[in-house]
Amino acid sequence: MRRTTGTEIERLIQLLAKLPGLGPRSARRAALHLIKNRDKLLRPLAEALADAGDKVSVCSNCGNVDTVDPCTICHDERRDRSIICVVEEVGDLWALERAGAINSVYHVLGGTLSAVEGRRPEDLNIAHLLERAAQGGIKEIVLAVNATVEGQTTAHYITDRLKAKGIVISRLAHGVPVGGELDYLDEGTLTAAMRQRRPL
Amino acid sequence: MRRTTGTEIERLIQLLAKLPGLGPRSARRAALHLIKNRDKLLRPLAEALADAGDKVSVCSNCGNVDTVDPCTICHDERRDRSIICVVEEVGDLWALERAGAINSVYHVLGGTLSAVEGRRPEDLNIAHLLERAAQGGIKEIVLAVNATVEGQTTAHYITDRLKAKGIVISRLAHGVPVGGELDYLDEGTLTAAMRQRRPL
Repeated sequence: MRRTTGTEIERLIQLLAKLPGLGPRSARRAALHLIKNRDKLLRPLAEALADAGDKVSVCSNCGNVDTVDPCTICHDERRDRSIICVVEEVGDLWALERAGAINSVYHVLGGTLSAVEGRRPEDLNIAHLLERAAQGGIKEIVLAVNATVEGQTTAHYITDRLKAKGIVISRLAHGVPVGGELDYLDEGTLTAAMRQRRPL
Repeated sequence: MRRTTGTEIERLIQLLAKLPGLGPRSARRAALHLIKNRDKLLRPLAEALADAGDKVSVCSNCGNVDTVDPCTICHDERRDRSIICVVEEVGDLWALERAGAINSVYHVLGGTLSAVEGRRPEDLNIAHLLERAAQGGIKEIVLAVNATVEGQTTAHYITDRLKAKGIVISRLAHGVPVGGELDYLDEGTLTAAMRQRRPL
């Protein structure tokens, strides 16, 4: 391609294309949209990014990202600190918070164990979870990991390490998603939902 | 939702969600990806945006966006300045440039005429196109507008205004897209492709 736009625009497109959900084509559309909306969108986004870059950090206690350390959740007096909800990624924490699913504190592992991709226990934030559990005052640890092979392997490993500490270890229920149609669900989910059926 | 992340992160997510191609969910994923890659992606993107905001402007001659005015294309000595390729949006100009479809200069209309959405000729960059055509030295004007009702209406209007100026006015060919399968094409395209068939 001949050089027809400034390098500043090309650089912007290249960087936008690295965002998850944007490919080269949508990055070009996004760049053009930003340039057309310079004052309403481009400049505010530039400032928001600079601001986040300066202020956001990883919580040294739970692994959440926030502008304070320890994070807002670890600070929150109204949380039940006797329950730690363990998630793979910060995005999972956000999803549970949006749902208001639990009023606990959290622990972000930063991924899952994976023999294939060579992720061992020491590559995850597991040691610190065991420390938090050993400090006392913890009644329950909810392993809210994904229902994937890696997620379940990770859950098993953590369960093994936490055994005999007198802490209840739980996992999310399997079942039919709310609003889900049986016809579209896999057999594993249907079998799990049937096995764990509840009286009305 | 309870307040669980800093307002800086929420603001970043809100702004990212305004980009075409990103919804609320993918904006959250993008924000998290940016925060995790602070030095490799977040800060460079903040700088690229600030840079583009400072340096990019609309070419006063053709309507392209670039860091110089007149733009790189209008400046380019190797272009055939006797041909003006008229497009609806800057994105169309970029698409033609990526393809290397034509070595002309351009004119960006900034949209199409639309009775429904109330866009009249004076809302588009048409008057300046007529000025450019009147300046002399122009042999051909290619109306590379979209093959939509609005695009074709706009093309007709411009053709009417340019008539009797001794300038060839052309439009893009209709036909089967390269790599396209006949079975998936609409009847209008097939009929046009057949009517304009070429000897091998």
